[in-house]
Amino acid sequence: MKEFDLIARLIPSLPTNVSVVQGAGDDCAIVEPGSPLTQTLLKVDAVVEGIHFLPETDPVRVGHKALGRCLSDVAAMGGIPVAGLVTLGLPSNHDPERIRHLYEGLGRLATRHGVAIVGGETTTSPERLWISVSLMGFVPRGKAVLRSGGCEGDAVFVTGELGGSLAGKHLDFEPRLEQGRWLAESGRVHAMLDLSDGLAGDLGHLLAANGGLGAELMATSLPISRAAIQRAREVPGARPPRAAALMDGEDFELLFTTSPKDAVPLLNAWKARFPDLRLTCIGRLTREPGIRLRTEQGLQVIPPRAYEHFA
Amino acid sequence: MKEFDLIARLIPSLPTNVSVVQGAGDDCAIVEPGSPLTQTLLKVDAVVEGIHFLPETDPVRVGHKALGRCLSDVAAMGGIPVAGLVTLGLPSNHDPERIRHLYEGLGRLATRHGVAIVGGETTTSPERLWISVSLMGFVPRGKAVLRSGGCEGDAVFVTGELGGSLAGKHLDFEPRLEQGRWLAESGRVHAMLDLSDGLAGDLGHLLAANGGLGAELMATSLPISRAAIQRAREVPGARPPRAAALMDGEDFELLFTTSPKDAVPLLNAWKARFPDLRLTCIGRLTREPGIRLRTEQGLQVIPPRAYEHFA
Repeated sequence: MKEFDLIARLIPSLPTNVSVVQGAGDDCAIVEPGSPLTQTLLKVDAVVEGIHFLPETDPVRVGHKALGRCLSDVAAMGGIPVAGLVTLGLPSNHDPERIRHLYEGLGRLATRHGVAIVGGETTTSPERLWISVSLMGFVPRGKAVLRSGGCEGDAVFVTGELGGSLAGKHLDFEPRLEQGRWLAESGRVHAMLDLSDGLAGDLGHLLAANGGLGAELMATSLPISRAAIQRAREVPGARPPRAAALMDGEDFELLFTTSPKDAVPLLNAWKARFPDLRLTCIGRLTREPGIRLRTEQGLQVIPPRAYEHFA
Repeated sequence: MKEFDLIARLIPSLPTNVSVVQGAGDDCAIVEPGSPLTQTLLKVDAVVEGIHFLPETDPVRVGHKALGRCLSDVAAMGGIPVAGLVTLGLPSNHDPERIRHLYEGLGRLATRHGVAIVGGETTTSPERLWISVSLMGFVPRGKAVLRSGGCEGDAVFVTGELGGSLAGKHLDFEPRLEQGRWLAESGRVHAMLDLSDGLAGDLGHLLAANGGLGAELMATSLPISRAAIQRAREVPGARPPRAAALMDGEDFELLFTTSPKDAVPLLNAWKARFPDLRLTCIGRLTREPGIRLRTEQGLQVIPPRAYEHFA
């Protein structure tokens, strides 16, 4: 059984209580008590040496990534991150300087987004370093954007550029917190998540959360990153650029849907507000399930598939 | 450098913000926004195969322990746990049944204390299973009991019995949530923490949080567990019972201080409320720093020392 299936099977039997607004299965959980004006967001995530980063990866970038992944999930809810806690699994022979640098990268990103680090535990992990970050945030009451909420005919948008993240972006990405908040405040976004498993995989998650709607994407509209094009040319075995934009993971961009009538006004407002970050309409939600790509050769079915990191 | 020192050094440079009421260094962090009547508690902790449990340990008990450790910290603040998230590091050859049983133990404890499990992530951990649990709770506004707040002359109390936890209690302990809440509501508790590193080590942490006060303990008052006595008799290399009560880790009992005039009323009220759980006055806080044990042979200095699990 795949891990994803295993956890999916366990979810219905997880204990719940009256505080739960949104449990497992979205980017973050939403719980009470919040304040009169806000609800509480919770997220936890981990990065493991040899899986999400390599032993020789600059620890400053590892710290950035460990926190950034959680921040990206808060962004995808339209939330505001508040406080993080860090658990480190430390190999017996660990270098204290490495840990200091890791905290430096994590701390710099935290400071930039106004996040406090309010706890740090360590435990022994004989073979490899891992970092688990848990994050608390808030979202204006009733305004969180979930993965569900998409409608047939919705325009599908993606921020930034996709593919080739392994060239460096998977370590240095900037979580789209400002953009996520702006999108949520616009009141025009129906469904949103952040891209960590690759466009095809994550779009599959979004569709699954929307009662099995499908999507049709336009191949020529995919915002393919320069890194994906360069990797396809230079790295043996790398995916062709279009496949990279669809399948590569860890883009940490936002994927969202909006009603077709709101698509152009939203795009124009975006350009005025975020002139340096692309926003692209890549297709639409359809009643027919599955993901189809409209190419020069006609419609092609895309299997939803999860990104598998280095391992 | 020991891990504890490393993290302690990093703490002053951790990013902070206006939401932080109590940052790293206590049992839980306290952050805003809370509700008008409450503040938010955050805690994260992890257990690792071969360190906190053995490969052959019943996974139901492992799940119990993973969540129980966090609950014990919430108890030590006088808090109420609300929602937990779980990250699993899964070996490549993991048995799905093992994970199901782990969630069963974790879920049963969560249900008993009204805790929702609102997220579950998995990642790859090639060599060994680990479980990181993060927990959100709340505490009545301004009523959290910190490690600081102790005064010279305070009576030092401990719940339950100490030592010999490796015989089984480290997997099956019941977090003292009801007791912690009751103690916090009494308004009589000055400082409190939960015992995870052993009485001597954790009392050292409490003293450090109280400007270097010291403590004098009465050897004959230590509530030594039956397990500690039995292990001393039967397990080669096990500590003598008194040393076990002082040094063994993972008791997950509460250690707190109260003013001497409140000690007897508190003890009487406790006996009426929790007739089945011992509460013992084991000594007092002193102006002279360090931990001293009053024995039949006179005063003996106890080095504060951290518990080191199996590894």
